[in-house]
Amino acid sequence: MLTRTPASVTTNGRSYRVPNTPTVVICIDGSEPGYIERAIEKGLCPNLERILKTGTNTLALSVIPSFTNPNNLSIITGRPPAVHGIAGNFFYDREAKQEVMMNDARFLRAPTILAEFQKAGSKVAMVTAKDKLRTLLGKGLDFQKGTAIAFSSEKADKANMAENGIENVLEFVGMKLPEVYSADLSEFVFAAGVKLLKTFRPDVMYLSTTDYVQHKAAPGSAIADSFYKMFDRYVGELDALGCVLVMTADHGMNDKHLANGEPDVIYLQEILDGKFGAGMTRVILPITDPYVAHHGALGSFATVYVDNDKRQAVLDHIKTIAGVEVAIPAEEACKRFELPADRIGDVVVLSSKHKVLGTSAAKHDLSGLTEPLRSHGGLTEQTVPMIANRKIVVPAGRTLRNFDVFDVALNLVA
Amino acid sequence: MLTRTPASVTTNGRSYRVPNTPTVVICIDGSEPGYIERAIEKGLCPNLERILKTGTNTLALSVIPSFTNPNNLSIITGRPPAVHGIAGNFFYDREAKQEVMMNDARFLRAPTILAEFQKAGSKVAMVTAKDKLRTLLGKGLDFQKGTAIAFSSEKADKANMAENGIENVLEFVGMKLPEVYSADLSEFVFAAGVKLLKTFRPDVMYLSTTDYVQHKAAPGSAIADSFYKMFDRYVGELDALGCVLVMTADHGMNDKHLANGEPDVIYLQEILDGKFGAGMTRVILPITDPYVAHHGALGSFATVYVDNDKRQAVLDHIKTIAGVEVAIPAEEACKRFELPADRIGDVVVLSSKHKVLGTSAAKHDLSGLTEPLRSHGGLTEQTVPMIANRKIVVPAGRTLRNFDVFDVALNLVA
Repeated sequence: MLTRTPASVTTNGRSYRVPNTPTVVICIDGSEPGYIERAIEKGLCPNLERILKTGTNTLALSVIPSFTNPNNLSIITGRPPAVHGIAGNFFYDREAKQEVMMNDARFLRAPTILAEFQKAGSKVAMVTAKDKLRTLLGKGLDFQKGTAIAFSSEKADKANMAENGIENVLEFVGMKLPEVYSADLSEFVFAAGVKLLKTFRPDVMYLSTTDYVQHKAAPGSAIADSFYKMFDRYVGELDALGCVLVMTADHGMNDKHLANGEPDVIYLQEILDGKFGAGMTRVILPITDPYVAHHGALGSFATVYVDNDKRQAVLDHIKTIAGVEVAIPAEEACKRFELPADRIGDVVVLSSKHKVLGTSAAKHDLSGLTEPLRSHGGLTEQTVPMIANRKIVVPAGRTLRNFDVFDVALNLVA
Repeated sequence: MLTRTPASVTTNGRSYRVPNTPTVVICIDGSEPGYIERAIEKGLCPNLERILKTGTNTLALSVIPSFTNPNNLSIITGRPPAVHGIAGNFFYDREAKQEVMMNDARFLRAPTILAEFQKAGSKVAMVTAKDKLRTLLGKGLDFQKGTAIAFSSEKADKANMAENGIENVLEFVGMKLPEVYSADLSEFVFAAGVKLLKTFRPDVMYLSTTDYVQHKAAPGSAIADSFYKMFDRYVGELDALGCVLVMTADHGMNDKHLANGEPDVIYLQEILDGKFGAGMTRVILPITDPYVAHHGALGSFATVYVDNDKRQAVLDHIKTIAGVEVAIPAEEACKRFELPADRIGDVVVLSSKHKVLGTSAAKHDLSGLTEPLRSHGGLTEQTVPMIANRKIVVPAGRTLRNFDVFDVALNLVA
């Protein structure tokens, strides 16, 4: 019997061609424009240098908040958070009156492109740096069929057939288990991707790294250059294997500190408590996650829950704070940034390029910050690279988003 | 003989349906989100209130620089400045060694949607507030055929058949010639639009106002509310005439002043002269035009011309200036903002929400600033309304730009 693969897969209202060539999408966490260019200038990235010339080198806009999870979920679903529901790592459940962590796949409201490709008969693979992201991105994959593999560097040693479609990953990749806070955690993702492409030969593969290095080190620094030199080696290997390769980032990254190296923080809960009284507002920082060492839960996006009769006064006051770039009601934020209304506070606040938003000084553990803070979350971290090892044809008038990356890789490559 | 109109018109790589219903696009200059909403809350805009509920109320992104001419030309061509060539009001001609004002139609590199519709057999009309914009937007219209009318409020008294396709405009509109610096200059545009729709019955019409009011007055202020109340009356008339009506803005508008009311200016030429010596760099402010009274040529976008061997040092220094949000080399700016490489300096600089970029204090005539400065040009003025009196269907995954407004009006309306 002849098995037939459909010509395209449609999910969340968008259609993607089923590829004849293995197609690899990489999300380089926190890869602010400039990192790759500075490393190329020093001759450290010969493969990327060649690809930028012979393929495609352009830019795209991320989702706001420019955080990891909202953007990774947008990439894997091809749609903004209004569709997939993941607007950050945390939201406040008004009915249950508690802060809820959105790192469980039940919070995801849309099917993923990978799961839909698997259903349509394609082989798919995914490797993430952190395991929590793997659980979100891996929703809907069926590991019983032998056509899907998904695991994280962080828990590579625990990967098993039932939950990951693969076992003995450390031997498979040929690296030891990396530390959670390390450049190795991302390198493991790339090494695993090369190995999967050689052996499992997925039709569609997604690789997603962690921004440990980018939080620590600016473009052109020795640490950053070393990371991109390593990355370039794997880019060369992937490219040499004949795949369509498209790279983007979940968000950019900027210095967020004073000249003396201290983080430049607007402690929003303190300010609002001082003005309106304790307990009148609740500031949620959706960047907060269990791995705060490299950013201290400080980013450029916050959302404030407040009773309706006080909202305008709170908005008006927030607008007077130096370093606040955007302070808008939830309705406007949901429209402008395509966010899910039930998972965002009543006011949305974005800080300027070099400032971050905190709750109160006592609540932020900054002991893990060994370097001056670099972070993200705002409009100034919305521009990210979109690099392909083929020429692409973007329809006239269209503004690329990072969550168009599967569309670019499957539909727009020449 | 049966004359046949083609089903669609293609220009600059985009296709537009030829409408069965008269289609009106309005660009409300400087209409930052919030102006309309604040006026609606006070009950001043019953027509817009109804349209926002029964039609479409969403947001779109403008072109950067968020200035009037680049955005109006993007709207009328459907493409970014990289395609149409108008990146501001001024550029520096390196060969001729002189600053060149780009307000002449010869600088426009792309055909306009209106001219292409006329060529395809449609009747078209356009009214602008200022006459210089009319000369740019009106390029390619043929006034000999009786199927095109284009004039400005500013020179309505001088309109003639040869250059405008209409004469005796003051009597036609029933208003006296407005002052250049006035809300009346925009009201004249709306009144003319209603009259044209009733009598000339264009298939496609473009109305573009001036931001005199928005530069002076914030959303919710008495002056702004009064403007939008006036606007709403004409919106009601246009809507009642049965047209498809879509409204957007060329850019937003924000306060750009200190608490004491003084403009908050980064005098970039002064800073660069102090650091690198006079004559080493040339700061161009593309907002500069002959009508500076309401902004003093102060906006949030500047471009710097500098010899290549000094460019990195200049970039590095500009990045250290407080209030600079973006400082990037021209190549990156042209890619990110889709700008024409030959009409932009070597470095592009954007300031933060409440700051503007100047050359040197002595060169800015601020005597016309009777109110604390409000201006635009940066990323914080990129978000603008996109309002239609019909439901629209936006393809999944697409981010609307203000220069999609003709696509919205002609192709996406339900």
